[in-house]
Amino acid sequence: MEFKISKEFIDQIESLIKANKDKELANLLQDIHFADMAEILEELDADDASYVFKILDSEQTAEILLELDEEVREKILRTLSPKEIAEELDELDTDDAADIIAELPHNKKHEVISELEDVEHAKDIVELLRYDEDSAGGLMGKELVKVNENWNVLTCVKEMRLQAENVSRVHSIYVVDDEERLKGRLSLKDLLTTSTKTPIREIYIPKVDFVRVDTEDVEVARIMQKYDLEAIPVVDEMGRLVGRITIDDIVDVIKDEADKDYQLAAGISQDVEADDSIWQLTRARLPWLILALLGGFVTVHVLTSFEGAMAEHGKLFFFTPLIAAMAGNVGVQSSAIIVQGLANNTLSGSIFKRLLKELSLSLFNGFILATILFLGSYFLLGIDIQIAEIVAMALISVIIFASLIGTFIPIVLNKYGVDPALATGPFITTSNDILGTLIYFTLAHIVLGGF
Amino acid sequence: MEFKISKEFIDQIESLIKANKDKELANLLQDIHFADMAEILEELDADDASYVFKILDSEQTAEILLELDEEVREKILRTLSPKEIAEELDELDTDDAADIIAELPHNKKHEVISELEDVEHAKDIVELLRYDEDSAGGLMGKELVKVNENWNVLTCVKEMRLQAENVSRVHSIYVVDDEERLKGRLSLKDLLTTSTKTPIREIYIPKVDFVRVDTEDVEVARIMQKYDLEAIPVVDEMGRLVGRITIDDIVDVIKDEADKDYQLAAGISQDVEADDSIWQLTRARLPWLILALLGGFVTVHVLTSFEGAMAEHGKLFFFTPLIAAMAGNVGVQSSAIIVQGLANNTLSGSIFKRLLKELSLSLFNGFILATILFLGSYFLLGIDIQIAEIVAMALISVIIFASLIGTFIPIVLNKYGVDPALATGPFITTSNDILGTLIYFTLAHIVLGGF
Repeated sequence: MEFKISKEFIDQIESLIKANKDKELANLLQDIHFADMAEILEELDADDASYVFKILDSEQTAEILLELDEEVREKILRTLSPKEIAEELDELDTDDAADIIAELPHNKKHEVISELEDVEHAKDIVELLRYDEDSAGGLMGKELVKVNENWNVLTCVKEMRLQAENVSRVHSIYVVDDEERLKGRLSLKDLLTTSTKTPIREIYIPKVDFVRVDTEDVEVARIMQKYDLEAIPVVDEMGRLVGRITIDDIVDVIKDEADKDYQLAAGISQDVEADDSIWQLTRARLPWLILALLGGFVTVHVLTSFEGAMAEHGKLFFFTPLIAAMAGNVGVQSSAIIVQGLANNTLSGSIFKRLLKELSLSLFNGFILATILFLGSYFLLGIDIQIAEIVAMALISVIIFASLIGTFIPIVLNKYGVDPALATGPFITTSNDILGTLIYFTLAHIVLGGF
Repeated sequence: MEFKISKEFIDQIESLIKANKDKELANLLQDIHFADMAEILEELDADDASYVFKILDSEQTAEILLELDEEVREKILRTLSPKEIAEELDELDTDDAADIIAELPHNKKHEVISELEDVEHAKDIVELLRYDEDSAGGLMGKELVKVNENWNVLTCVKEMRLQAENVSRVHSIYVVDDEERLKGRLSLKDLLTTSTKTPIREIYIPKVDFVRVDTEDVEVARIMQKYDLEAIPVVDEMGRLVGRITIDDIVDVIKDEADKDYQLAAGISQDVEADDSIWQLTRARLPWLILALLGGFVTVHVLTSFEGAMAEHGKLFFFTPLIAAMAGNVGVQSSAIIVQGLANNTLSGSIFKRLLKELSLSLFNGFILATILFLGSYFLLGIDIQIAEIVAMALISVIIFASLIGTFIPIVLNKYGVDPALATGPFITTSNDILGTLIYFTLAHIVLGGF
């Protein structure tokens, strides 16, 4: 049932644009869902995209604008006057309109706001622009259905019909007092099954989950997920109902957060995509590579200081990449488990207990791996038994240290308010490379002596 | 507003259990949300958890069961008779009930099903058990509100009131024909704002998104996210409406998929958590480490074959960990971007174009990094200019190969239906370690000759 864009379809659109056949173009595109239209516009070049955008129905264009990639949206908005932009925004929910305005250049922002037709809508949008975009206030919309606890169901239903005109999805009916303070909710189900004569204060459910305007977005996501909510009301510092957040916004927060953690673990900062420019990709990737390179210098330096071993025990140097790689892999595993535990709020117990568990785990795994390494080196690669012993011992020590560091660092970062996901990826692998090499050669030095 | 479990609270519960003060215990726990109750039970030991579970109100327990960690749930279910389990399931939606039954041991399954009180409910659950759990059929529930196109709004509203009794969240009203084939939908908003005399076939919206029972769960998630849907109807092979999927189930799919990709990138298979047993964690981690270790053997073997270089150009060996680490980091970056692009369906263009882009990117980044490496080695570490040149040249070559491999492998895996996320993490770092070392020493051999 999903629409698939074909190359032929894009070609057809491009040739219709070239021939200025606006009417045929409009006919061709009229029944396409706005999410698909956004994808089509992203495939066209900037001029063609603006051309098509202006031909389309204004009801459709506002939603398309919302679905577009930020860069394509910026290009299209640049071709529109403040008045035209305001017309698009008048069609959108307050939270979506505020998000688009927030992206505009500073001077254009004010012009667009002053062109908004519906004054109430404009007021709501201006209010929303005040909140931090990563807070509940930045996520919420003003569209909601609320009733006063002093009304009866009859008034309530009438009022609701009016309010519902402006609300595309009715999730819950919130109950407030005369001061607009959130008191509780009426579920849609109650509305469908209760007699119309009951007074509201007798039937509303006083227990209602809510968040405050300054709650962080990931926290809102966690709460809505935990309590299985499709919408949550937002209150201000005085407990007054100021907006609501719906699950579709939360889906985006969850997705973005997961993407960010994944990218950080892979050594990519900033929110980049495969289709971004080489310059954007470089900015996201190069800093991590430079970090890894500087870490590499330290490893070279460590190895240089053990140069004396080369004459007699040169074979030791064959194992440095293996030891470093194992240290990196173990460290990443340990830190990834902690980062996920922190994100999902499933870590219980003290740091000490956690390190102790990691210690037993790495002793167990380390012993198995060291045995394989010893047997493999001695029998398969024909390494002297003494070197094979040293390498195996070094592997156990390195695995223990790497896993403790991988566990410890994200917990500590999190404690000091730093994103623990930063600790995964290149950061952990690089520091464990250095540490692994150092442990390995120090051990060799102690056992073999004399270099 | 979120409930926080304190150690004191758990202690209080434990002492009430010890003293058999059931009534006080029930009072203490009665107003706690089921999601919080689940967390409390997870903190208690198995016997205490079962004890508390049996004291609680049956309305609450069914929902708690659903929220529990699979292992804790299993332990509690083991202490319940088939009849008791059936009573819990009678309180749940069909999809949730089916999920819990699916986890039971085979013989208990049948006993529980035969004890279900509501025959319609039981039939629905048995039907749901037939579908693959990773498909739309496995995600969907049978609870939905549907009306016949031949009714009028009056009949429709009456019927809806009846149906809504069994549906906890009404998202959409689906319209079917006499054969139960999905024809369209009525939105809740339409219901609130339309006169009751209109016939349904005149007012329903014939355009409705749907998925088929055999659509994969991640595909359902992508479609619902793309089209911003809070619920989607599911049809069978004949187009008959058989169920609906709600966004809260999709949130879990998105979260699970993201967690899985993250873990694979970190070299952790299976769905493990920080609080799992050492044995479970070992099973998830050790295989990847063994893979990395075997890769390490190959690196050792490669280095052994260049042993001849040690006498005259021993310094070359100081740089192997650096070269290998850079190859690993670049490979992981490239593959992560492709894996994410594939997951979000944002990759466009041919493989060839993508490899070409990656080539220019790595030429650009490689040149910058090689310059830093050359200057650092020569001036900082005091390495001979010839070795510094070789190392810098090797770095550029290695970065180019590593990024091409990182780009190519996930695309190819995906083409053959293998999860591309497998290609990230230890797999890429290990193969790039080997390749990096090989390229580096081959280059050195060509330039320096004679070893």
